[in-house]
Amino acid sequence: MVRTMPDRTRRSERSRVAILDATRELIGEIEYAKLTIEAIAARAGVGKQTIYRWWPSKGAVVFDALLAAAENPDGGGIELPDTGDIAADLTTVLRATAAEFTDPEFAAPIRALTTEMLNDADLAAVYRERMDEPMRAAKKRRLESARRAGQIHADADLDLIVDMLYGPLTQRWLQRSGGLDDEFADALVAAVLRAFDPD
Amino acid sequence: MVRTMPDRTRRSERSRVAILDATRELIGEIEYAKLTIEAIAARAGVGKQTIYRWWPSKGAVVFDALLAAAENPDGGGIELPDTGDIAADLTTVLRATAAEFTDPEFAAPIRALTTEMLNDADLAAVYRERMDEPMRAAKKRRLESARRAGQIHADADLDLIVDMLYGPLTQRWLQRSGGLDDEFADALVAAVLRAFDPD
Repeated sequence: MVRTMPDRTRRSERSRVAILDATRELIGEIEYAKLTIEAIAARAGVGKQTIYRWWPSKGAVVFDALLAAAENPDGGGIELPDTGDIAADLTTVLRATAAEFTDPEFAAPIRALTTEMLNDADLAAVYRERMDEPMRAAKKRRLESARRAGQIHADADLDLIVDMLYGPLTQRWLQRSGGLDDEFADALVAAVLRAFDPD
Repeated sequence: MVRTMPDRTRRSERSRVAILDATRELIGEIEYAKLTIEAIAARAGVGKQTIYRWWPSKGAVVFDALLAAAENPDGGGIELPDTGDIAADLTTVLRATAAEFTDPEFAAPIRALTTEMLNDADLAAVYRERMDEPMRAAKKRRLESARRAGQIHADADLDLIVDMLYGPLTQRWLQRSGGLDDEFADALVAAVLRAFDPD
């Protein structure tokens, strides 16, 4: 029994990778609402039960597939650019984020997953731990560095700054309530930095 | 045929009211995900087809039921308080909105409907026309009055101000990513007004 373990582990890992690959392929091919665990299992060449052994829901396996495709799969090691100019760096980051959200291929599965998460507390907790918290920590490190450099007010609430930068952008995207172009990103960054001006 | 029309119209209107009442009752009794058109029809004493004749989806009938229960059912006639002090008025409004969102009974159906709307473009269009646009117009009228009074900058982009006030609040609520207390509302209003200070 002990001698067969490594083989079983290798087989498990192969199945896991096949499932994540199949999920990622299918996300690009069919609408999220029409994606099923059955379709993922068939594409990966595994049984449905193999998927349910590791993931509690479609949302959970899609989330892992998207994470595995991300540059920083555990959300760690993320750093915002730091050229020493907080306005320039935030503008770069917000413009890039706005551009990603307007790319339908990138945005469609994220939108579906986000809305699923809003009513699924378990999935939301995984998202918070693995993506939102490491991302927020990275944003706050960059803001902390700007605060040390005297570019934002010493008393500024960094969580509030993060929410003021990303809340309007996320809402415009999710609710399709306004443009998400460079002009919007620039105006938003400028307004938030004025609000926390050190002078 | 012509003589029977008034009766048919009255019967239709009675059914419509019964459906909206039944929906509103059921929203308070069972989880949104478990609410069905069948249950609404049974409670209202009508056939399922009667509901589908007027509403294309569960989300649509729930949305109408919530609108019918609102003080300003067509979103018109809404005005923000105007005491002449924009900081005080926005603080009042944002504190009240944050408090509503933390009330589970108020917030649960709105959350479910919001998430449904994010993936249903038709429902989103109805929401935009009947709720979001009249509400946004009312917010902008109050900001316009503050701008005339010299309390916000003459060049301020009023849509951006609305997004900066409501985006962070909506995101904290939907993603459960932070507190929604008076302290948050106060800090948010103060920061946004600093960003658009006339001086």
